[in-house]
Amino acid sequence: MARTAGSHAETTGPRVREAAQRLIARHGYAAVSMRQIAAEVGVQAGALYLYTPDKQTLLYDLMRLHMEELLATVEALPPLDDPRAALDRFARFHIGHHLDRPEAVFIAYMELRNLTPENFAAIEALRRRYEEGLAAILRDGVARGAFALPDLRLATRAIIAMLTGVTHWFRDMGPMGRDEVAACYAEMVLKTVAAP
Amino acid sequence: MARTAGSHAETTGPRVREAAQRLIARHGYAAVSMRQIAAEVGVQAGALYLYTPDKQTLLYDLMRLHMEELLATVEALPPLDDPRAALDRFARFHIGHHLDRPEAVFIAYMELRNLTPENFAAIEALRRRYEEGLAAILRDGVARGAFALPDLRLATRAIIAMLTGVTHWFRDMGPMGRDEVAACYAEMVLKTVAAP
Repeated sequence: MARTAGSHAETTGPRVREAAQRLIARHGYAAVSMRQIAAEVGVQAGALYLYTPDKQTLLYDLMRLHMEELLATVEALPPLDDPRAALDRFARFHIGHHLDRPEAVFIAYMELRNLTPENFAAIEALRRRYEEGLAAILRDGVARGAFALPDLRLATRAIIAMLTGVTHWFRDMGPMGRDEVAACYAEMVLKTVAAP
Repeated sequence: MARTAGSHAETTGPRVREAAQRLIARHGYAAVSMRQIAAEVGVQAGALYLYTPDKQTLLYDLMRLHMEELLATVEALPPLDDPRAALDRFARFHIGHHLDRPEAVFIAYMELRNLTPENFAAIEALRRRYEEGLAAILRDGVARGAFALPDLRLATRAIIAMLTGVTHWFRDMGPMGRDEVAACYAEMVLKTVAAP
């Protein structure tokens, strides 16, 4: 449904980002034009520039907002004293959060190459902050004798890759529900870092 | 260096695929034209059609050859009787093979969405065959009491995702060499599936 430019200033920003996310996830950043995004939103191409200065900023905002929402959610969880319980919760949280956002996850991995160096550094800093949350759980578990790891940084990345991999193949209505899948992954993650 | 069409029939096919792989990994399938690929190879756009009927076939060939080379290499390894030794070797092989082919790995994950349904099914069948090789190691280890898993299919995918994740961040000349990284990952994979 076409709308005139500026008719719904507060809602058009999110609608622009949703349209951009859908198109970029489907076709890739380089293949999507501002004109296509405008058409998807139902505004004139010129009107899009009321909401974003350029396509790079739009991509950066998508990736930044994805990471900021992830960080805000995980950092709002109440602390857990037991490192095993904290890691179990992290694994289930990570899978659930990412399965709810397949397009954002896809873009977060695939479009890093298309960020300017400055924007890339900013996104990398947010990713490192998220990794550091998991690393803190692992470090605490090692200090308390619950976990044993060959290398903290590698274990952190191995766990995140393992968990994020679920988004490549999981489909609701498949043979296993997402809670069952998340429970299996949490069990595997705990074994991966368990002290002997 | 420009070459005239058809001047090196046996070598132009691989050069077309190399150019296509480089451009698609950089810009994405949808953003790359046959004209750009021809320019990268140094032939006329029309000459490209001597080597491939269309861009879809070129993408499919890249992904199919990547999977066929992976399968030929892993299936040529001499059998190992000990499931722990077989899994350790699989982990190190998978990391080394994929680190040597970052563009092909990136395309293998990112461009699945751009395959026709028929080509997608063919690539999926090759991927399932590769997964089955790992599943056979895990199944054997479970039967012999060396491994314990919550779910064979999930463990297979979790391990492949964990190992492939190295390609997202590993750079030669970083603080750890690839053999050291592969050894750490092999240790974590073995723990992930170890019997209690």
